[in-house]
Amino acid sequence: MKIDQIDKKILELLTLDGRMSYVDIGKELNLSRVSVRERINQLIKYGVIEKFSVMINSEKVGKTVSAFFEVDCEPSFLVEVAEALASNPSVASCYQMTGPSTLHMHVLVSDFAALESFTNNELYALEGITRVESHILLRRFKSRAGLKL
Amino acid sequence: MKIDQIDKKILELLTLDGRMSYVDIGKELNLSRVSVRERINQLIKYGVIEKFSVMINSEKVGKTVSAFFEVDCEPSFLVEVAEALASNPSVASCYQMTGPSTLHMHVLVSDFAALESFTNNELYALEGITRVESHILLRRFKSRAGLKL
Amino acid sequence: MKIDQIDKKILELLTLDGRMSYVDIGKELNLSRVSVRERINQLIKYGVIEKFSVMINSEKVGKTVSAFFEVDCEPSFLVEVAEALASNPSVASCYQMTGPSTLHMHVLVSDFAALESFTNNELYALEGITRVESHILLRRFKSRAGLKL
Amino acid sequence: MKIDQIDKKILELLTLDGRMSYVDIGKELNLSRVSVRERINQLIKYGVIEKFSVMINSEKVGKTVSAFFEVDCEPSFLVEVAEALASNPSVASCYQMTGPSTLHMHVLVSDFAALESFTNNELYALEGITRVESHILLRRFKSRAGLKL
Amino acid sequence: MKIDQIDKKILELLTLDGRMSYVDIGKELNLSRVSVRERINQLIKYGVIEKFSVMINSEKVGKTVSAFFEVDCEPSFLVEVAEALASNPSVASCYQMTGPSTLHMHVLVSDFAALESFTNNELYALEGITRVESHILLRRFKSRAGLKL
Amino acid sequence: MKIDQIDKKILELLTLDGRMSYVDIGKELNLSRVSVRERINQLIKYGVIEKFSVMINSEKVGKTVSAFFEVDCEPSFLVEVAEALASNPSVASCYQMTGPSTLHMHVLVSDFAALESFTNNELYALEGITRVESHILLRRFKSRAGLKL
Amino acid sequence: MKIDQIDKKILELLTLDGRMSYVDIGKELNLSRVSVRERINQLIKYGVIEKFSVMINSEKVGKTVSAFFEVDCEPSFLVEVAEALASNPSVASCYQMTGPSTLHMHVLVSDFAALESFTNNELYALEGITRVESHILLRRFKSRAGLKL
Amino acid sequence: MKIDQIDKKILELLTLDGRMSYVDIGKELNLSRVSVRERINQLIKYGVIEKFSVMINSEKVGKTVSAFFEVDCEPSFLVEVAEALASNPSVASCYQMTGPSTLHMHVLVSDFAALESFTNNELYALEGITRVESHILLRRFKSRAGLKL
Repeated sequence: MKIDQIDKKILELLTLDGRMSYVDIGKELNLSRVSVRERINQLIKYGVIEKFSVMINSEKVGKTVSAFFEVDCEPSFLVEVAEALASNPSVASCYQMTGPSTLHMHVLVSDFAALESFTNNELYALEGITRVESHILLRRFKSRAGLKL
Repeated sequence: MKIDQIDKKILELLTLDGRMSYVDIGKELNLSRVSVRERINQLIKYGVIEKFSVMINSEKVGKTVSAFFEVDCEPSFLVEVAEALASNPSVASCYQMTGPSTLHMHVLVSDFAALESFTNNELYALEGITRVESHILLRRFKSRAGLKL
Repeated sequence: MKIDQIDKKILELLTLDGRMSYVDIGKELNLSRVSVRERINQLIKYGVIEKFSVMINSEKVGKTVSAFFEVDCEPSFLVEVAEALASNPSVASCYQMTGPSTLHMHVLVSDFAALESFTNNELYALEGITRVESHILLRRFKSRAGLKL
Repeated sequence: MKIDQIDKKILELLTLDGRMSYVDIGKELNLSRVSVRERINQLIKYGVIEKFSVMINSEKVGKTVSAFFEVDCEPSFLVEVAEALASNPSVASCYQMTGPSTLHMHVLVSDFAALESFTNNELYALEGITRVESHILLRRFKSRAGLKL
Repeated sequence: MKIDQIDKKILELLTLDGRMSYVDIGKELNLSRVSVRERINQLIKYGVIEKFSVMINSEKVGKTVSAFFEVDCEPSFLVEVAEALASNPSVASCYQMTGPSTLHMHVLVSDFAALESFTNNELYALEGITRVESHILLRRFKSRAGLKL
Repeated sequence: MKIDQIDKKILELLTLDGRMSYVDIGKELNLSRVSVRERINQLIKYGVIEKFSVMINSEKVGKTVSAFFEVDCEPSFLVEVAEALASNPSVASCYQMTGPSTLHMHVLVSDFAALESFTNNELYALEGITRVESHILLRRFKSRAGLKL
Repeated sequence: MKIDQIDKKILELLTLDGRMSYVDIGKELNLSRVSVRERINQLIKYGVIEKFSVMINSEKVGKTVSAFFEVDCEPSFLVEVAEALASNPSVASCYQMTGPSTLHMHVLVSDFAALESFTNNELYALEGITRVESHILLRRFKSRAGLKL
Repeated sequence: MKIDQIDKKILELLTLDGRMSYVDIGKELNLSRVSVRERINQLIKYGVIEKFSVMINSEKVGKTVSAFFEVDCEPSFLVEVAEALASNPSVASCYQMTGPSTLHMHVLVSDFAALESFTNNELYALEGITRVESHILLRRFKSRAGLKL
């Protein structure tokens, strides 16, 4: 699928407001409601749009501690550990990166007690983990919704 | 604002489908359309919902390289550097963390040439930067939309 | 328990002199001896005051070497190792921190021979320890309350 | 001053309860009240006892975040930076250590916003600082005497 | 074998063009064709010239990702791991170095998927590997053919 | 330019022997001499073959020390430093990489005195260099000629 | 044993020339030959002088490579590994240090082949070694004979 | 100068006892006193023997703290810093090494106060120093006199 300039503008509008109606998008771009719907359906069909979502303020739903983890594990356990972590509800994202660490993970929890419990009871309980490094978010300068990292 | 169990269920439904209609949400939770709309408006008003968005597959829009940067800068330049980076369209997120690095940043670009150009022409051009470390994403195990990291 | 301004002043006075009499505290704050005693009892009852203690000059009691240890251990041994170390009389404090090290520990011993013996015979003897890093205190700029760290 | 076994027992009793009366100490050790008072006065006079203090639960007085900082600075600024930090009320302790870092510092603040403000406005504002690394306390296994670190 | 100035000039000419004919080399250096052939045969016989080769642009044959790996392994597995890696067609070079890493390796693969597959399926599958660090080439400033590194 | 299977086989033969004659290549692949020459000329024209070269044993021409350098420099000096190093005859290759180091460089020199002189007189003499890390090659397990790294 | 100023001067003279005769030392210090001999015998008896030795130029006896090793080992193997290394003739010194490394070792060997052989066949062959870091001496600015390090 | 087996034996004997008489060396090796003297004079003349020295127990002359320093400095200051350190009486040795650190230095001082004073007043006072890392010797396993490191 080739994405043209109009598709890009639709994606920009939806990034700003994921619930914008087909009619309003059409008005902005001088398109009919049907044409907008068709284009969006194509974008969904070909996997360009993975889903519509909502940006929630994590602190306002009680997740006050945002932490990054670097998780080293024995090479033969890497995929198993990554999948176990990916299924943990406290884990927001989990990537394998180049560089010195095997897994890079983002965790959101309610407070320090929860962070300590996650670390000692959920993370350290996984077989094959050799070393863990964690850092706490102090200040957000930018946090872009929309594009999958 | 106190979030109750029904609010939480609304947020869960919207995380799965940010365009779900008030009527459909109401059916799921046994609420009227008006009541759903009022709750969502409250969640927006108190900043629990920051915005509705769309999850785009970055590779399908031509962003094939996803990189993490650790950016050290002279302390007196930190905020200035962070704000310059936050305004750069290639930068998806930019945080100040505890630990050894001053800024943690996520960058999405089209290819290696773009990554090299970003590094040498946009990042290194900022005054006050002393050291940069970058890593490339190899594999995604989890990438959760919705909650602000 | 809510701590008011008078409680805070009592805590400040006791931090400067933990044996200050109720009468003298009362004079400073314009309170009766009974009222001071009641407030201090409340502070103890609710765990604000954990105990009264004495600040001993560690060098003058023969502890001339003050060292910090970073102790890495296999995740499944962490709590066991930490508790063994906490029960060691040479260990002044032992914490689990975020960052790259699993345990941060402060040790006070009489001399280098004791430090070497502690390292090789007491610390390395614990099962599950994988890596130890130690640093020696050179100069104190501030050391607030309690045994000097 | 030579410290004998009786002095050591007095110091142990005072470490457990810094407000223990001379009479009670005397009963424990089979000494007269006057003799206890004289020994304690000698311990104070020769600097063995630096002061009597109180062990306050930092969280219960609103200091919920306990952080360790490694602060590197240009060699010619070290003492100046250390003294500025030592005079900062959020700083509980500040040491020069062997090893890679010039200053090791313990900070107690009310919350993350305070930690970020301390880092950006008070620490980074000091001339001569080149690099800062911070870690957050997750769990205390032992914290001997004084303000909990 | 002693290499004289004429041998050095022959090597320089062959470094610039490995297919230069004996006649053309002879013209440049004022030597007969036979004399050039004899000298080159001597250089081959004594191992100064290891082989004639061709410098291929890796990107133009589909190897778009060039990565460096630092591979740590259990000491007793070092040679075995190194030999397994040396026989892997994606591995361009593999050295044991002084410094903190046991093996330094250069890998050329077609794309990120291939790099992830190489890392997880070929490298991590080797017994005795304890830690891997990888970095991606961003820009070439010099890449000299000819001398064995 | 599309590279087919026959081109690939020609490249493989030339990698093993860069001076192989068109006739001999033709015999191996069942092609005429003219057809081989045309294909090789095309591979040269489109930059697939960058040049023909010779693999010289560096120790036999007196380059007994093979070292890797990681060179950190102030961001604004990066390109200038890299170009100066690339023009230095002791430098075999010089790359900008992801990861913590700005430049990765391979150096071949005659002995330790030459390495020390290169480090102190040629490398450290460049403006903008902040930190240098060097490692010496101990053993080669694989060193592939041909593909540009 | 108390060392006085005259003893210190004798030690200084012997540090400069370990074979200086008692008579010549006596002349320098205005002492009788017998008195010098008695003082030296006392210095030997009380272990101040451990032995007389000779400073050999390591390169001139064919030890051209001088390397420092940081050797990490499993804690329970530390003393065993250290003693095995101490008995190795290539090892000039072996210390346990504070800091991140367990053993710091100085090795003198004839060339790189010997260094590689020492590393792979003698060092890596010891049970309990987990990580080795080596660095090569480039230039001596000072190398003081006499005092035991 | 070629060193033969007899020279090597003389060096071994002198390493064990630097004051051994020519007569006693001659008896051991079946040589005349004159022949021993001539060989030793040759070894001195050609720089194989740099000097005769004495091995002093540093603790017994009041040097109780033995420390290793890694000193990083701005490249243009390296030689100047190294020479200043080499002329400092507390510095026993000072080398430039491969690896991450520019200078490796061994320091012997009387106690911690002297170490702190050396660090802050003598080391940090030198222009061009950017970072210092120090470690304290805990235990000697081997400390060979004789060979220059």
